[in-house]
Amino acid sequence: MLAERIERVLIDVVGSARHEQGPALLAEAIHHSVFPGGARIRPQLALAVSVACGDADPDLSERFSAALELMHCASLVHDDLPCFDDAATRRGRPSVHAAFGERLAVLAGDSLIVLAFRCVIRSRVREALRLQQALSMLEFAVAPPFGIAAGQAWECEPRARLSEYQRSKTGALFAAATEGGAICGGGDGPAWRLLGESLGEAYQVADDIRDVVLDQRQLGKPANQDILLDRPSAARQFGLEGAYAYFDALMTRALSAIPPCAGEARLRNMVLAESERLLPLSVRSAGLQPAAGPLSIGLN
Amino acid sequence: MLAERIERVLIDVVGSARHEQGPALLAEAIHHSVFPGGARIRPQLALAVSVACGDADPDLSERFSAALELMHCASLVHDDLPCFDDAATRRGRPSVHAAFGERLAVLAGDSLIVLAFRCVIRSRVREALRLQQALSMLEFAVAPPFGIAAGQAWECEPRARLSEYQRSKTGALFAAATEGGAICGGGDGPAWRLLGESLGEAYQVADDIRDVVLDQRQLGKPANQDILLDRPSAARQFGLEGAYAYFDALMTRALSAIPPCAGEARLRNMVLAESERLLPLSVRSAGLQPAAGPLSIGLN
Repeated sequence: MLAERIERVLIDVVGSARHEQGPALLAEAIHHSVFPGGARIRPQLALAVSVACGDADPDLSERFSAALELMHCASLVHDDLPCFDDAATRRGRPSVHAAFGERLAVLAGDSLIVLAFRCVIRSRVREALRLQQALSMLEFAVAPPFGIAAGQAWECEPRARLSEYQRSKTGALFAAATEGGAICGGGDGPAWRLLGESLGEAYQVADDIRDVVLDQRQLGKPANQDILLDRPSAARQFGLEGAYAYFDALMTRALSAIPPCAGEARLRNMVLAESERLLPLSVRSAGLQPAAGPLSIGLN
Repeated sequence: MLAERIERVLIDVVGSARHEQGPALLAEAIHHSVFPGGARIRPQLALAVSVACGDADPDLSERFSAALELMHCASLVHDDLPCFDDAATRRGRPSVHAAFGERLAVLAGDSLIVLAFRCVIRSRVREALRLQQALSMLEFAVAPPFGIAAGQAWECEPRARLSEYQRSKTGALFAAATEGGAICGGGDGPAWRLLGESLGEAYQVADDIRDVVLDQRQLGKPANQDILLDRPSAARQFGLEGAYAYFDALMTRALSAIPPCAGEARLRNMVLAESERLLPLSVRSAGLQPAAGPLSIGLN
């Protein structure tokens, strides 16, 4: 239900980039970047929080949620570029630069950033102030100094602290999902921020663990990248056992960070399901032996 | 006066990307992309139109104008990347990827796109509807199917029509400058569109001519790129004499496209000065002999 609301908006805004008098390959590269999607965890989280807060402005909530996914897709397309991860696959398919070339991958990422704003700007919004607040959440979560672009840029600094790297690279969009989702839904934005921050950090730790214990077939993208690319990683910093313990602590913090609200029980179940999806038992046991478990779905 | 209002906003928003807890090199790369600037023609045009229309919302007008420049800078940074023009210089200095590396150039361009939206979103706007309209002008001028990202993407298509390529690649931001400037100033947006479209096309034709007749020292960036990179170009399509005639026709159309308004005479003078700046006599005569004229200032 949440998923359908999000996909409908994504189809609509991705479609707005295609026109018979516009460049066809760029439109295809953009479509390839967004469909078929991954878990869509950021927009689902944002919309779930909006609903839990009363869904005061449904069109804005849907569009804000979808915009987070578009920003996430943009970051994946640019992170996969030859100058960064040089990843040939993503979600089990060719990455955008592998399928369309580097130039269209740069432009598809650029376009997705702008389409994310288009998505929110075209809201039939009930309260103008809420639109401005939602847009502020969006830009803050992406631009420097603390957005995902800054997170990625920590890879270019001579020294980076793991916590600041992860807080920006992954945490920023998750924090925007919960705080911004609450604002769009009519709730108290700041009260919801810690939930998103905790989930975002847990997500990044899970990603670090999966990078180590799963293989390319299981990940749907190249494995062992953190060591190969010398990136900060919880698994490298704390060891595998330490990273598991840290993940569990973050998920516990996330659960207790859910503010009292009508949809509290449903959100709690969503967080628990996400915890199991991120690090299912099959992954946890894979860490104790060479990776050879059943095919699992990529996170992105 | 217009120039000072724009620089103040640019300094402010570029500064907002820097923080002692954020990545320093990204902040430097962004600063390098914007300062020292080129002619700042797009924001000056937008603000001049706003003022001519009554300057109904000065803060919004300044911010919208500066946002156009940030989008323009983003496009220059990404167009200079190795996978596109692979330009080592820009405005007579090292291009961003030459100075900071390819990864920070990708991220600086991404960040500038988001900072352009931040710039407008943070307006202390008098009318909420006007903010939404200004933001719509901005996203439409950049995203596909008709924005500058689409314009650049025509270089990746097997076939491109010169007019559609130029209308998107250069015309889109100029059209947004006049139509959006009018909206921010309280005028009738669509009545101002033809002025921007004409100036944008003239600007692109002048750029095509300069690419042929000037050398790298005079341009502040590599010369002869249209032929080297096999790009559509008015000089290639019409020959040099034909391109000069086309430029003059476009400037005449621009002059007659200025709607009746209080600031009409001032705008007319601005267009005439721009025409002389784009293709001064020294450039026109350089086309008749090998390039060796006095140092001229780059357009971008």
